[in-house]
Amino acid sequence: MKLPMEMTIGDIANLIGGRVVGPADTKVSSFSPSPLAAKEGDLAVFFEAKMLKQLPQVKASAVILPEGTETDLPAIYVERPLVVMQKMLGVLGPKRFYPAAGVHPTAIVDPSVKLGKDVAIGPLVVIGPNCEIGDKTKIMAGTILGGKVKIGNDCLLHPGCLIADYSQIGNRVILQQGASIGSDGYSYVTQKMSNMERRLAGIRELVDESNPHLKIPNIGYVVIEDDVEVGSNATIDRATVGTTKIGAGTKIDNLVMIAHNNQIGREALIIAQTGIGGSCVIGDRAILAGQAGLKDHLTVGKDAIVEAKTGVMRDIGEREIVTGTPAEPMREFFTGLAYKRKLPKMNSEIKALNKKVEELEAKLASLMAEKQLAK
Amino acid sequence: MKLPMEMTIGDIANLIGGRVVGPADTKVSSFSPSPLAAKEGDLAVFFEAKMLKQLPQVKASAVILPEGTETDLPAIYVERPLVVMQKMLGVLGPKRFYPAAGVHPTAIVDPSVKLGKDVAIGPLVVIGPNCEIGDKTKIMAGTILGGKVKIGNDCLLHPGCLIADYSQIGNRVILQQGASIGSDGYSYVTQKMSNMERRLAGIRELVDESNPHLKIPNIGYVVIEDDVEVGSNATIDRATVGTTKIGAGTKIDNLVMIAHNNQIGREALIIAQTGIGGSCVIGDRAILAGQAGLKDHLTVGKDAIVEAKTGVMRDIGEREIVTGTPAEPMREFFTGLAYKRKLPKMNSEIKALNKKVEELEAKLASLMAEKQLAK
Amino acid sequence: MKLPMEMTIGDIANLIGGRVVGPADTKVSSFSPSPLAAKEGDLAVFFEAKMLKQLPQVKASAVILPEGTETDLPAIYVERPLVVMQKMLGVLGPKRFYPAAGVHPTAIVDPSVKLGKDVAIGPLVVIGPNCEIGDKTKIMAGTILGGKVKIGNDCLLHPGCLIADYSQIGNRVILQQGASIGSDGYSYVTQKMSNMERRLAGIRELVDESNPHLKIPNIGYVVIEDDVEVGSNATIDRATVGTTKIGAGTKIDNLVMIAHNNQIGREALIIAQTGIGGSCVIGDRAILAGQAGLKDHLTVGKDAIVEAKTGVMRDIGEREIVTGTPAEPMREFFTGLAYKRKLPKMNSEIKALNKKVEELEAKLASLMAEKQLAK
Repeated sequence: MKLPMEMTIGDIANLIGGRVVGPADTKVSSFSPSPLAAKEGDLAVFFEAKMLKQLPQVKASAVILPEGTETDLPAIYVERPLVVMQKMLGVLGPKRFYPAAGVHPTAIVDPSVKLGKDVAIGPLVVIGPNCEIGDKTKIMAGTILGGKVKIGNDCLLHPGCLIADYSQIGNRVILQQGASIGSDGYSYVTQKMSNMERRLAGIRELVDESNPHLKIPNIGYVVIEDDVEVGSNATIDRATVGTTKIGAGTKIDNLVMIAHNNQIGREALIIAQTGIGGSCVIGDRAILAGQAGLKDHLTVGKDAIVEAKTGVMRDIGEREIVTGTPAEPMREFFTGLAYKRKLPKMNSEIKALNKKVEELEAKLASLMAEKQLAK
Repeated sequence: MKLPMEMTIGDIANLIGGRVVGPADTKVSSFSPSPLAAKEGDLAVFFEAKMLKQLPQVKASAVILPEGTETDLPAIYVERPLVVMQKMLGVLGPKRFYPAAGVHPTAIVDPSVKLGKDVAIGPLVVIGPNCEIGDKTKIMAGTILGGKVKIGNDCLLHPGCLIADYSQIGNRVILQQGASIGSDGYSYVTQKMSNMERRLAGIRELVDESNPHLKIPNIGYVVIEDDVEVGSNATIDRATVGTTKIGAGTKIDNLVMIAHNNQIGREALIIAQTGIGGSCVIGDRAILAGQAGLKDHLTVGKDAIVEAKTGVMRDIGEREIVTGTPAEPMREFFTGLAYKRKLPKMNSEIKALNKKVEELEAKLASLMAEKQLAK
Repeated sequence: MKLPMEMTIGDIANLIGGRVVGPADTKVSSFSPSPLAAKEGDLAVFFEAKMLKQLPQVKASAVILPEGTETDLPAIYVERPLVVMQKMLGVLGPKRFYPAAGVHPTAIVDPSVKLGKDVAIGPLVVIGPNCEIGDKTKIMAGTILGGKVKIGNDCLLHPGCLIADYSQIGNRVILQQGASIGSDGYSYVTQKMSNMERRLAGIRELVDESNPHLKIPNIGYVVIEDDVEVGSNATIDRATVGTTKIGAGTKIDNLVMIAHNNQIGREALIIAQTGIGGSCVIGDRAILAGQAGLKDHLTVGKDAIVEAKTGVMRDIGEREIVTGTPAEPMREFFTGLAYKRKLPKMNSEIKALNKKVEELEAKLASLMAEKQLAK
């Protein structure tokens, strides 16, 4: 990525807060996040520890490195190169195409809607009655808001998002394209005792006739706090009663399913295709890795880690790390795997023991018999 | 939730069909589905058995309880409090924002479309040629119907639903936002024998050259019977030939994937992120819990339960309850788990046995040797 | 399906390249892909080996069969009946409703967009600045393209697709409804060391304070090569830097999640609800079956098969077939299952051995004691 102008690494170090080793007047004209592809004139950033082994082959004019690394190249040392990269990409990256401030003539905005300053509403956006949109928020093409939706300042709603009635969204929230907020939860009741209830009550006779699932109306809504991001085509259901809440700073990946009445903490990470059953409580900074699944009414503690593909059927404590289905502590899971691999050996040992014991029994029997005879 | 006016619990009991214990002229002015949050003037409903232990702390003026519960508070006893709650939420819940009857001026409805009485078509809805929409059906903003789609009476299609050509939808069907009906199934054929076919035929030599997957046209369509609900961003593929059918009263949760040619029974429950391979047959009232996966061409019997995250690779019988991957009967799965936990003990026992048997062998050998010597 | 006119099977054999056995002047007037439902006048196709057992009951006037099958009916023998069926369905299937060539008056196409010949743009389509659309490509209702998107010739974009800035799409690509291309990847960094980093560094003290996840801008984009198909509501994230690439001829099913920077080979099959972590490399013709999950930074070799629901945490070699979580070779997985089933027997054998060894010890001890006494 071209820098806006040629700069010395001394100037850049001042801007990003780093320490120069080597000639501070080394000039660079572009920034490279791929050290191996960097060439003369580039400032290459080593943003992951495992990239450091590429250092000897690098042809960049200068490098950004974490403290504690050695090189002969002119270098800017920083504490967290990935943070530098994050800032540089934000400044230097190619421009994205957002709607201009104002309301696109094809957008359909109910007259009762309150729009903040410098709001940008793209083409074919629909905003229902009594919504409020905060300052500088951008709503991209084809996104649809129901009635009484409230959205804070500086939000970015990508195209094709669907946000149902009464949803409350904070500031600086990003919704990726196709995200669905506030769909009805999955809650039904049958007029007569259902076969599922019969089984739970220990009744063996099931009934083979219609017993319709009656929809329980969802009178609650979704609250998304500040700085949340929701991935593409993810779904967050509204609450049956009360709220489904996503805490500030939590990041939700694509195709995640968050059911009704969940209470998700702050700065949690919920990774792709994870599904959380109704009424769960997820602690701050908990990490639910990809394709994890949680039964309803569970609690996951602060800083807990639910590994990818884990099936959780019990509460998870603070800081606990679990994996497997049903979820068990990481260590137990791997102990279990190790024992599983020992099974063929265990089985042959049992066979061998059986044989030896038979031989022993035979020998002992003959010894006893002899003795008996000897008497 | 405020009642429309102050009422006596005697009057309410008459309306909902309950039995009053305590003063029938007790007056209430609002309805609370959260007993612990209820205050004077509230009628609180205990709709789940586990809420009953909160009963002593409740400050409501009266309570709705299941038969067989005791309290000093004025109470209305009913058989199924959750059914009462379901009705009350429907009557008292805040209004949702649906399009008004008629066709919004920005909707694009082909002139050949037949609209029933009191149909409500929201903004930016697209309805293709020769569609038929039944009486009182509501189609919300941005939902798109292809050609020859037929939709029954009293349906509610939330915003952003996508319904492809020839789909047939019954009465009182609800599609949550972003639901996708009638996308093409995943069916391909290669002109030459594929490497997969080679392997199945026991041919070890694979071919490292292009052998394109040719798309098999999908000439079938989707049939959704009465009273079905489909969750947000769920997908139901059309049939290759014939129909993909969802039986009456079946409820499908968010992000579920139903592949081509499935035949789903009546009043089944298919929970979030479950995926069903092509051409499966699912029985009435079967329950497929969250993130379950079914291989194609399988049958699941009536009233069977496939637990969450189960991977099904064989037919499942009526009333069978299965879990695990590959799916096995619930009981076997838990027996298996119990044995897995015994493995460390089994392994040490084998070691101890080995040692004891060696000692026995040694002792016996020395005994035999002594005897030999003695001769 | 009615043929356009009555034809002899001799003429049809000439058209599709087959060999007639029986009277070549047998006349048929329709084509049936369901042999058991076929009646007189039908030409029935047996496109799957397992259908062949239905052959004796078939009432069709003629049949299409794979070489090596016997019948008394007039027959056309072909090498791959499924390929014949694929072609026949394409020619005879009911018409689908595509937009007419030209730009629908309600579409919003930026003046800078370059449209090829015979492009068809449906209602309410949005095309952002500087896009290029190739000849004969069809873009259906409500699909939204950001800026600088390039789409090749003969593509079909179903309704409601969302294609973000800079996406590059080849020729003959099909996107099913609701497919999302180019959403931002899931990449964050924290200003201070995160609790996750602390744990990895072996630091036991975690910090219970805010440490926000800063979004790493995604300056890369998505490249989809020729002949790719993407399923309904599937999501493909753009690259952080560089490209997320889907190789020519690869087919992606519904609700699949492909994270940032993936490099997917040619003619791969990625089946429903599979999720691939960031920066993976997937070989040509690899098959990832339904609900499989891959950790980030993995490599899957050519012609490898990852079975349904597999959780992959290591690289997979060429032609390897893996299953289970964590993924292991198919054979080992089934050996493991077999041993698991032996556990109850192994456990009773250990118990029996314990008893026998105790008895042996007792007998031997008494023998020794006797001997001692005898001295």
